[in-house]
Amino acid sequence: MPDPFPLPEPMRLALAAAQAAAQAGEVPIGAVVTREGRVVATGENRNRRDNDPTAHAEIVAIRAACAALGTDRLTGCDLWVTLEPCAMCAGAIAHARIARLYYGAPDPKGGGVDHGARVFARPQCHHRPELFSGLGEEAAAALLRGFFAERR
Amino acid sequence: MPDPFPLPEPMRLALAAAQAAAQAGEVPIGAVVTREGRVVATGENRNRRDNDPTAHAEIVAIRAACAALGTDRLTGCDLWVTLEPCAMCAGAIAHARIARLYYGAPDPKGGGVDHGARVFARPQCHHRPELFSGLGEEAAAALLRGFFAERR
Repeated sequence: MPDPFPLPEPMRLALAAAQAAAQAGEVPIGAVVTREGRVVATGENRNRRDNDPTAHAEIVAIRAACAALGTDRLTGCDLWVTLEPCAMCAGAIAHARIARLYYGAPDPKGGGVDHGARVFARPQCHHRPELFSGLGEEAAAALLRGFFAERR
Repeated sequence: MPDPFPLPEPMRLALAAAQAAAQAGEVPIGAVVTREGRVVATGENRNRRDNDPTAHAEIVAIRAACAALGTDRLTGCDLWVTLEPCAMCAGAIAHARIARLYYGAPDPKGGGVDHGARVFARPQCHHRPELFSGLGEEAAAALLRGFFAERR
């Protein structure tokens, strides 16, 4: 039976980036920035490789997109990420003025969008992206489960 | 009359970094990472210069400290910053395992430590620094007031 709702291409790419992160020994999370449907930048977790606690997939992708476009505001750009962003990344998404956020799996233990800090719901948050969740959730969660099962 | 409680040297350096940011046309916020009382790295706001919405003083200082020490965990290090960190920076401080956070002025409109997201107070936050606030508050707030008054 054909897939009744095929996964959008940017989320496929984010999943591929997550897989690449796992192969490099990093927690498998990937992100993609698009503008008008075209890919501007991709990012994957690089904490260990780069010795950088801020190098989550979302931050890597946002910084790369800003560098590619020569701006510090990604107005009109969308971010696709395999896992619910943490508070740090939600803050970065707000600062970058991302228009739409698509995330795959929810993260009750570390998320900062629909759990915990709920960064976008605070009056201190000066920009809120439009929010979509659950796209590619199964594949994203399976990558994470596989990664942590191997290390236990 | 001598100052009854002189400002600790790292906060003086953070204020100097904030002043340098203002001179470069950036919002005047500065940060310093110390370990056992010695300066490991400093940072100042670089959003505009670097086209990087994540380049807040805290993130710049944390990334520089990690690069200097060759690690992604600043265990045993302290962070001194002139303004209450936003949610993004509070998240980065937690990820970096900063031991003590000293901030100058509170930021009711944008802060994420003692206002809004209150990142460290959430169960999703896996590391909480010891917290000190108000050191250098007057000087830090005056720098910000002066900067925004000039631009109005």
